[in-house]
Amino acid sequence: MFQKKLRTGPREDVETFELGGIKMAASTDTLVFETDVPPGMSARDAAAKGVTACVSDFAAKGVRPKYGIMSVSLPGGTTSRRIGQMASGVGQACSKYGIRMLGGDTNEGESSITVCLFGRADRIVPRSGANSGDAVFVTGPFGYAAAGLDALMRGGKKFARYVVSPEARLEFGVKCSRYASASMDSSDGLAATLHEIARQSKKRINVSKIPVKGDLVRYAESRRINPDRLVFYGGEEYEIVFAAPPRHRRAIMSGAGRLGVPVIEIGTVATGRGVYLERDGKLGALADGGWRHLG
Amino acid sequence: MFQKKLRTGPREDVETFELGGIKMAASTDTLVFETDVPPGMSARDAAAKGVTACVSDFAAKGVRPKYGIMSVSLPGGTTSRRIGQMASGVGQACSKYGIRMLGGDTNEGESSITVCLFGRADRIVPRSGANSGDAVFVTGPFGYAAAGLDALMRGGKKFARYVVSPEARLEFGVKCSRYASASMDSSDGLAATLHEIARQSKKRINVSKIPVKGDLVRYAESRRINPDRLVFYGGEEYEIVFAAPPRHRRAIMSGAGRLGVPVIEIGTVATGRGVYLERDGKLGALADGGWRHLG
Repeated sequence: MFQKKLRTGPREDVETFELGGIKMAASTDTLVFETDVPPGMSARDAAAKGVTACVSDFAAKGVRPKYGIMSVSLPGGTTSRRIGQMASGVGQACSKYGIRMLGGDTNEGESSITVCLFGRADRIVPRSGANSGDAVFVTGPFGYAAAGLDALMRGGKKFARYVVSPEARLEFGVKCSRYASASMDSSDGLAATLHEIARQSKKRINVSKIPVKGDLVRYAESRRINPDRLVFYGGEEYEIVFAAPPRHRRAIMSGAGRLGVPVIEIGTVATGRGVYLERDGKLGALADGGWRHLG
Repeated sequence: MFQKKLRTGPREDVETFELGGIKMAASTDTLVFETDVPPGMSARDAAAKGVTACVSDFAAKGVRPKYGIMSVSLPGGTTSRRIGQMASGVGQACSKYGIRMLGGDTNEGESSITVCLFGRADRIVPRSGANSGDAVFVTGPFGYAAAGLDALMRGGKKFARYVVSPEARLEFGVKCSRYASASMDSSDGLAATLHEIARQSKKRINVSKIPVKGDLVRYAESRRINPDRLVFYGGEEYEIVFAAPPRHRRAIMSGAGRLGVPVIEIGTVATGRGVYLERDGKLGALADGGWRHLG
């Protein structure tokens, strides 16, 4: 669902354009059931997640999506009950994020749902705006979506809700956009997201704190998986990775607190290039790398 | 690709919404290669057709699409050459219709392309506006796309261009929208389109002239297919079916002539319900029915 954004200019989470003097943003996301929907996830949840993925693109830019259209492909013989479940999932997600789904079309094909959302965007927080001296924050913590997928693929349920019914950080993204210099949705994976911000900003990012909690580390150990793989390369998480001047730290943290969104300061922006991880006093390059299925 | 439009209100070719006081229209179309792309049609042509299908929705409403985003699904291992061909097909179609394709995302899955276009729409020509006494027109003639598909499925080439590289009637649709009371894109098939206009307008449509030419009738006869099946139920044609007051007949015909678009007057709107066909002096109900694959 999140492999690559096609674009003529610098890549962004949303595309921007102007009509009638009004600046707007649009984004589209496709969820392919065969590859993106693990066993144990209902058609309703899958359809809702198609909306959530697209909302997350807007959240990272500080823009509220207002309207949507969608295109649904379903194999011949799909029951009307299943279609109704998908419509209900889309409806629930749209209602949660204040979006009016205008309509769309249906087609015969492998099950998939493509959601396209639009909103007014007088300004977006770009990927390219990080400045030396900025602090780097994430909503988080990370790793649960990849761990949940691993569990689901093995018939388990642990952390499954991070895969089945993820949430986009829309309110936080909109409220804190005034403080952020650069921002991006983390769905391609934390490492890939940090690299993309560093690359577009022409800066270096130093990560000194890994946004991970003990339960995730314990799960990884029990499964003999390197926790880094889940945290940095898991992907399919709808968190916001952003940079902001340190003077806004208190405002960001108190805004996050009011919304009940966990925000973790993970590092700093510096002159240079690349993404580096400081661990046990040692500094090493953090490999770039996109989201990959664990299954 | 054209099975059904999902919508909360009355179904339309485009969805309309307002942002910042500006009225806009959006539409989306998905082309699934497995079901929509016959043998002998290149990836480039298929991608271009995905754009054309969506442009045709706008053409029927008299609205010019200005921007687009897309979502492309491709199986793992798709060559970059094939991806380049698809991008080139999209680029050609966008350039032809004056659309700026902003970007989009790619996913792993069965080959498909979803195009979403937007434009400013101070007014759209609705499906529901036909009045008693209006004349009914089509751009056309009809039947070639279904005949071309039939030929392609049998390894032939006759009429193949109507399937492989169809054109949307954008200039005509925009220029003549001032005269039309009701209008709809014909891609669901001529019979289904006439029924939808009659139903939404709460009127009856009498068809007295079948928009067909001799070469199509001869092809149908050679294949022992009822020409009506190709003309009324073939579908996948990007023509405009519209109603207009007879006093605009001359303006419509001369506008069409200037643009080189064939326009045929096929009947009239009357009080009542349903769609009727007059042939050899006899009047019969024209069955409703959507587009179906002939293959």
